[in-house]
Amino acid sequence: MRPTYAYLGPEGTFTEAALLQVPEAADAERIPAASVSSALELVRTGQVRAAMVPIENSVEGGVSATLDSIATGDPLMIIGEQLVPIRFVLAARHGLELGDLKRVSTHGHAWAQCRGWSSANIPLTEYIPAASTAAAAAGLLDDSCSYDAAICAPLAAEQLGLDVLADNIGDVEDAVTRFILVSRPGALPEATGSDKTTLVVPLPDDHPGALMGILEQFATRGVNLSRIESRPTGQFLGDYFFSIDADGHLTDERIADAIRGLHRISPGLRFLGSYPRADQRSYGVPEHHQDKAFRDAHEWVRGILDRE
Amino acid sequence: MRPTYAYLGPEGTFTEAALLQVPEAADAERIPAASVSSALELVRTGQVRAAMVPIENSVEGGVSATLDSIATGDPLMIIGEQLVPIRFVLAARHGLELGDLKRVSTHGHAWAQCRGWSSANIPLTEYIPAASTAAAAAGLLDDSCSYDAAICAPLAAEQLGLDVLADNIGDVEDAVTRFILVSRPGALPEATGSDKTTLVVPLPDDHPGALMGILEQFATRGVNLSRIESRPTGQFLGDYFFSIDADGHLTDERIADAIRGLHRISPGLRFLGSYPRADQRSYGVPEHHQDKAFRDAHEWVRGILDRE
Amino acid sequence: MRPTYAYLGPEGTFTEAALLQVPEAADAERIPAASVSSALELVRTGQVRAAMVPIENSVEGGVSATLDSIATGDPLMIIGEQLVPIRFVLAARHGLELGDLKRVSTHGHAWAQCRGWSSANIPLTEYIPAASTAAAAAGLLDDSCSYDAAICAPLAAEQLGLDVLADNIGDVEDAVTRFILVSRPGALPEATGSDKTTLVVPLPDDHPGALMGILEQFATRGVNLSRIESRPTGQFLGDYFFSIDADGHLTDERIADAIRGLHRISPGLRFLGSYPRADQRSYGVPEHHQDKAFRDAHEWVRGILDRE
Amino acid sequence: MRPTYAYLGPEGTFTEAALLQVPEAADAERIPAASVSSALELVRTGQVRAAMVPIENSVEGGVSATLDSIATGDPLMIIGEQLVPIRFVLAARHGLELGDLKRVSTHGHAWAQCRGWSSANIPLTEYIPAASTAAAAAGLLDDSCSYDAAICAPLAAEQLGLDVLADNIGDVEDAVTRFILVSRPGALPEATGSDKTTLVVPLPDDHPGALMGILEQFATRGVNLSRIESRPTGQFLGDYFFSIDADGHLTDERIADAIRGLHRISPGLRFLGSYPRADQRSYGVPEHHQDKAFRDAHEWVRGILDRE
Repeated sequence: MRPTYAYLGPEGTFTEAALLQVPEAADAERIPAASVSSALELVRTGQVRAAMVPIENSVEGGVSATLDSIATGDPLMIIGEQLVPIRFVLAARHGLELGDLKRVSTHGHAWAQCRGWSSANIPLTEYIPAASTAAAAAGLLDDSCSYDAAICAPLAAEQLGLDVLADNIGDVEDAVTRFILVSRPGALPEATGSDKTTLVVPLPDDHPGALMGILEQFATRGVNLSRIESRPTGQFLGDYFFSIDADGHLTDERIADAIRGLHRISPGLRFLGSYPRADQRSYGVPEHHQDKAFRDAHEWVRGILDRE
Repeated sequence: MRPTYAYLGPEGTFTEAALLQVPEAADAERIPAASVSSALELVRTGQVRAAMVPIENSVEGGVSATLDSIATGDPLMIIGEQLVPIRFVLAARHGLELGDLKRVSTHGHAWAQCRGWSSANIPLTEYIPAASTAAAAAGLLDDSCSYDAAICAPLAAEQLGLDVLADNIGDVEDAVTRFILVSRPGALPEATGSDKTTLVVPLPDDHPGALMGILEQFATRGVNLSRIESRPTGQFLGDYFFSIDADGHLTDERIADAIRGLHRISPGLRFLGSYPRADQRSYGVPEHHQDKAFRDAHEWVRGILDRE
Repeated sequence: MRPTYAYLGPEGTFTEAALLQVPEAADAERIPAASVSSALELVRTGQVRAAMVPIENSVEGGVSATLDSIATGDPLMIIGEQLVPIRFVLAARHGLELGDLKRVSTHGHAWAQCRGWSSANIPLTEYIPAASTAAAAAGLLDDSCSYDAAICAPLAAEQLGLDVLADNIGDVEDAVTRFILVSRPGALPEATGSDKTTLVVPLPDDHPGALMGILEQFATRGVNLSRIESRPTGQFLGDYFFSIDADGHLTDERIADAIRGLHRISPGLRFLGSYPRADQRSYGVPEHHQDKAFRDAHEWVRGILDRE
Repeated sequence: MRPTYAYLGPEGTFTEAALLQVPEAADAERIPAASVSSALELVRTGQVRAAMVPIENSVEGGVSATLDSIATGDPLMIIGEQLVPIRFVLAARHGLELGDLKRVSTHGHAWAQCRGWSSANIPLTEYIPAASTAAAAAGLLDDSCSYDAAICAPLAAEQLGLDVLADNIGDVEDAVTRFILVSRPGALPEATGSDKTTLVVPLPDDHPGALMGILEQFATRGVNLSRIESRPTGQFLGDYFFSIDADGHLTDERIADAIRGLHRISPGLRFLGSYPRADQRSYGVPEHHQDKAFRDAHEWVRGILDRE
């Protein structure tokens, strides 16, 4: 039986493009899910092997739905990441030109990212919110559609056979979105030397140094953080957890040691996986933070305790 | 001429409720703006005295549009904050009952906050995104409206004369949203003893200790942080600024001193105001972080430098 | 064969008094050594079971000879400590009175500690340095002795049958000296719940944060330091090691973990023993720094790495 | 009237050599004092312009008598420092050879520093303590002297006309002692760009982070410490102050700012002077810790507070 993968749908979104970048998923059955949480639910219930969801957007920041969904509920594990360049097109029904447009629809984030181009080129066009860029595009095929054009991914316009009135209309060149492939907990992907470890750390209490205490656990082991984002727990104003990406793999002693330190001060800590970096960037680790230094220290103390 | 205030519209949103809590604004002319950035644009261009916009939601977290709009562009200043309890109602056209509903519309955040109630009570109802809760409610008055009900604030249902099918349907009791009143830069509101200072601090570079360096500037002066949120700068993945609320007023020596320290290591720092806390909570400050300790230290060093 | 103990002699010093406080040593053979380093040499060569030497004086500070002798050379291990109240007497040959004294001898440290009394009571008396307080006292029995009186311990005056012209002449009441019992490395004394661990930590390099890096290893594990002293390595000006006493025993997980951390950043670290505190003071350890928290953290990480 | 300078005597010590290195003192009247505290007393009472005393020895470490005498009592100020290479000679009465020596005298520190040479070359010779190396040398001129040779400075042997049996007998090559020139408080020596600031900082209390709190005040302003030594206050075991040398001058903003921070957390702080470094070493200061960054930060905050 072919493995099955879910992704945040509908078809033709950047998320499907991210999934297609994964060799094992290209031939697999792919199920578009209506939301991040339903995609992850398919993983949790074992209906799919893994799901691809967006986690970070270079323009709009962390994707709250994903950050929150993986931070709570039944445990999940990130097994990979994909970077996808974000390119927006303005797609319309056949026969229309820019000057004809009265209403344009897209997802709120996409609208925000094309604000500059829209103000300059279609200033009088009304904005109609949609649940996704692909849904906005698909709506155009519906005769009763209340708008004339959609901002969407090139893939969607192509799949639906829409006219592209303008290409590459995002305000930020080199915009990129990062996606993660999420499975149920299991054996970790092997360390490659260019890995990333993702954690969810509740702020243990609100005394001034609580966040510093967390950061120190990384700093004293020379662990670099490539991302740190605050998220509300949803309980009350000012109650946060932190979503953190650290450079390295749990099988690296310095990462395991930092995580043990975090577990002591914030036992509600959640480990979300160690997996290869999409950018394959490697990072220098000073000698005294390498595995050998940890093993030497461990044996040295062991030697004292074993004396007779 | 009466002063004028803008707010994130349309009428009947929680933001208007927040503005109505401000005594000076109750009698003033109030202008609903289509977006956070257009509300702030009215302030920047001097068309209104100030604008009320949401900044933090106990369930959904920081309001990105606000955090980003005040962090860039022409300088603005926060002069006050308001807390508004968030209560959602399900409002419908006259004569409908729960079992009749086929489609419901509201803003994405509101939909997220009522997910539990919706799954349990209207599981088969389709969701139609709207630009705001109030817009969803107002749409119901339009004959060609494609949905039957809206999730909105009690104020909106009341103003529009809609039937309330269910009250208090949010998943989190005691949900609250924090709003800020924003003006052009000017003299700071006077210190009350229970104040808050808001800052935007770009991460000076990505070395491991950069965020710790920022936090230390507060910690060494005993300044508590009530909020710290990361936001992408929009330039590239992993490029952040931090939006920070610190306990105290710029006229408190420990705050001024911490900010001077921040300015040295991150000169792109933006000061967004010192203003009274909505919760009027006060906080103990140890003697060695009080103004007198700062003045004594200053005079002591001065005394040495002035010796002849 | 009875065990043998060495001590910094000669007989009658406070060091012998400290050794007599140790039950096992009271009946043992006791050998006075001419210097701290010769006492420790007797230990290193196996000629004695252990040696008692002074390490810290509440008035004069760390005893350099001891700090330096145990920090270098063949490894040694501290197995216990003793506190001895320091009381000085002015002892003279038979028949002399205060007004008769022309010259008084004692060890430089003792002279320093009785400076106030001497200035007030024997201001014109000349000071003759001696190698120890007991040597000064013993010299009085020699007919050719060039001085008339000695400042020494009550024990010495008593053993030698000298007249005590004045008692309790130290400037600081409650002066106390701390002595350590030093053996060759072996099994550690068992943890009692009120223990102390002594370390020698070379400053890894002279960058500004080097000492902070060392202190952080203790602070992040909640380990209190009861003593920290700098000592020159003797190599060049500004080259130091630190002699440190930490609260706790190497079998406490937080101590072992801190020491592993130190070993990584300063591999030249020397472990000098974990032994019961003389003052039997115990110290509260927050839950997240207790052994259980360390074990839980270890198992939690283990559990992730062992997943299949 | 010629100015007068005191120094730790007697004549012919390394301290006199240090004083002779000071141009203004070469022609001045020079008074040898019997002890560090009496030398400083001459300064405090205004009988001399300044006094030269040893403060740090590359082999034996900080000179306790000096560290303690300047840390308490009427305030004093360090106005300069001198480095003197330490070279010991073995000087004897005329006509004696190495094999003839039965007893040798010198100061305890000097004896300690020549231990290696003595063990190898005059192993059977008895050691007689003396109050100073120069006193030991001078004693040889006395017919009733009880010893045959002295370890002293070359200057002393030369001044007294003694035979030098062995030269350069110290165990550590390049041994050097640092001396300070101490006056009453007054205007600071001008900054040269290669300066040092000396402080005495009582440990505010014994909680684990107290010393870290002190070090942070330097670290957050990028101030390097070239020396940090603990000294007991003499009150009770474990009660310390720290004697600290920091790179820079009180007129450097980062130094003044760090000292203001220290004054807040440890108001018993004592400022002992800013003065040119003997080694004229200069140190790079990153842009954000330079005076301009401090002034910019000050004006930036000022600008906000002055808004109308």
